[in-house]
Amino acid sequence: MEIEVESSKLAKALAIVSRIAVGGKATLPILNNVLIRAETKRVSLTTTNLDMAVIDYLPVSSSKDGVVTVPARLLAEFVGNLPKGATVKIHTEGTKVITESGKYSSTLNGAVADDFPELPEIDEEKTVRFKMGVDEFKVGINQVIVASSNDTTRPALTGVYFNTDNGTLYIAGTDGYRLAEKRFIEKVKSEVKAIVPTSSLSEVMRSLSDEDEEIEIIFDESQVRFRFGEIEITSKLIDGSFPDYRQLIPKTNEAEVTLEKAELLRVTKLAALFAREVGGSIVLEAKTATKTFSVASVANEYGENTSEIEAVITKDERVTLNSRFLIDALNAVDEENVVLEFSGRLNPIVIKNEKSNNYTHIIMPLKS
Amino acid sequence: MEIEVESSKLAKALAIVSRIAVGGKATLPILNNVLIRAETKRVSLTTTNLDMAVIDYLPVSSSKDGVVTVPARLLAEFVGNLPKGATVKIHTEGTKVITESGKYSSTLNGAVADDFPELPEIDEEKTVRFKMGVDEFKVGINQVIVASSNDTTRPALTGVYFNTDNGTLYIAGTDGYRLAEKRFIEKVKSEVKAIVPTSSLSEVMRSLSDEDEEIEIIFDESQVRFRFGEIEITSKLIDGSFPDYRQLIPKTNEAEVTLEKAELLRVTKLAALFAREVGGSIVLEAKTATKTFSVASVANEYGENTSEIEAVITKDERVTLNSRFLIDALNAVDEENVVLEFSGRLNPIVIKNEKSNNYTHIIMPLKS
Repeated sequence: MEIEVESSKLAKALAIVSRIAVGGKATLPILNNVLIRAETKRVSLTTTNLDMAVIDYLPVSSSKDGVVTVPARLLAEFVGNLPKGATVKIHTEGTKVITESGKYSSTLNGAVADDFPELPEIDEEKTVRFKMGVDEFKVGINQVIVASSNDTTRPALTGVYFNTDNGTLYIAGTDGYRLAEKRFIEKVKSEVKAIVPTSSLSEVMRSLSDEDEEIEIIFDESQVRFRFGEIEITSKLIDGSFPDYRQLIPKTNEAEVTLEKAELLRVTKLAALFAREVGGSIVLEAKTATKTFSVASVANEYGENTSEIEAVITKDERVTLNSRFLIDALNAVDEENVVLEFSGRLNPIVIKNEKSNNYTHIIMPLKS
Repeated sequence: MEIEVESSKLAKALAIVSRIAVGGKATLPILNNVLIRAETKRVSLTTTNLDMAVIDYLPVSSSKDGVVTVPARLLAEFVGNLPKGATVKIHTEGTKVITESGKYSSTLNGAVADDFPELPEIDEEKTVRFKMGVDEFKVGINQVIVASSNDTTRPALTGVYFNTDNGTLYIAGTDGYRLAEKRFIEKVKSEVKAIVPTSSLSEVMRSLSDEDEEIEIIFDESQVRFRFGEIEITSKLIDGSFPDYRQLIPKTNEAEVTLEKAELLRVTKLAALFAREVGGSIVLEAKTATKTFSVASVANEYGENTSEIEAVITKDERVTLNSRFLIDALNAVDEENVVLEFSGRLNPIVIKNEKSNNYTHIIMPLKS
């Protein structure tokens, strides 16, 4: 194998693929390696952690076909420290991989590609494909990922649920205490019901660059592939059933409170400081008489805190909830004003944008 | 007590003093508190961890004299989250401290000031005082702190040694494997021989702001005080004797190598990547015949690396040393070109700037 490529392009690609190789399962050392395959003026760099695989395709200025694997992180760091704009030549001598750039040179001990795990194939016969704008994708994923769980004892909740309803695409995340749902404008021809691991989505989010405008998403029965720029990330789906979450979203409410998001976020953060010792518990109170919405921490060893802000309020309400959940929800809505819907102190609180209705975030109150 | 002050000024001062209060020795909970003392239109905020005390003086717009202590971190975070430019009013009701700013309000449970530890007094009769420019101070401290030790079994090496020789001030740091010395331009009238804890110097460095132009340093027999802007940091000195380090600095050398610092830093970083498995060990080789200086890692499980750079060389040399130490030394010298002086493979290597001679860094080689 022999390739020639500009250093910063190679460094960028290696930085992306080496992330999932690093800290791979130590029982299979080759998972620390990147598979470099040169084929007709194009090089692919591949890593996998068995749950997920990343491929980055690089145009190269000259190449002798071949394939080898080498420690991903070491090569990424070596190339990352070379001067930008320099030409990097990589060639193999058996499983030794020699990387040269002007006066800099290294020899890495590689391993034959035969030992590299087989990469997942997407069954082209049974796929659902669609494309969406990268900006919309990023906003939507961030809005729901925040509500998903880290608790691996309930695997279905550690993913984001992609699902269609009459051709409209929704994504949802929940950890059992809160739930976020986003509706996309894209229409999808076939039905999708798939749970994508949050960890894989995070990897996609990190790998997206400012130049990427469109992302293609391809589902088969057990896998999903994200394709953007020169990159393909393929991940297993989570095998399990996602809760029938739509029935959890209240259809009606007792009271609505409309207020400035930035202001509510500030007073919630202030109350959260004092709520640390009581598990983050804060009390929200809407008062129609004074047209004020108050956020208070419960008095404890260190002290207490109350703030009042102006709000449009339809009915008096009082609920206790986890301040961190409210902060996450407020960071997820994307308009200047936010609407909070209440239905008594034991029922879910709904947080929405004031104008657009494509995002719903609900939080279960705490008993008080 | 009653004070009124602008929120961002108070937030800045609290951020500085709360750093040493946080995580204070839990056996004495009042060390988590900040002492607030209002006296004739001025407020002082004081924290201490018993080894060090920080005082920040704040001009206030109105005040009723008094003194109280409250949890430093909680107050710092509360004030830090208030809108900038707002007026903050703090008053006490017994040991309760009420902080109000417009619609935001908190009540903190304080403690009486009587329980707050006595602050160290500097004995004004027996002091050495001098001032220096903040820029010079910062550069100098950074240049020597890097060579000082974290090993608390040898306390004297966990500090920076301030010492005078014929009225000239020097500072030095060493961990036994490397040594850095900086000579200042300031003349000091009395003799100084004092070891200042690196941790206290780091706190001073973090507390210096861009507006500070001058720093005053005051030593008595057991303490040092740094005064700058509105801040005073007082620290115990380390009780012990610093090694007679000057005799360790070679007076002569066998060979000199002059080369571009940025280039040497790059090739050292490249070699360091491959040297991880061998304790950071790299080999430097100066060759007069080819006028090249090479930096190489020793071949190991993952591979090896060699780079050659142009250099002016007076005699062939070859030494093995710790790549991290060389990287630290190169980051500490501050000219474009660096001079390395060698005296055989078992003697210290001296790293200097090419032109100025106020900074000396020496590294003990590794046996090879």
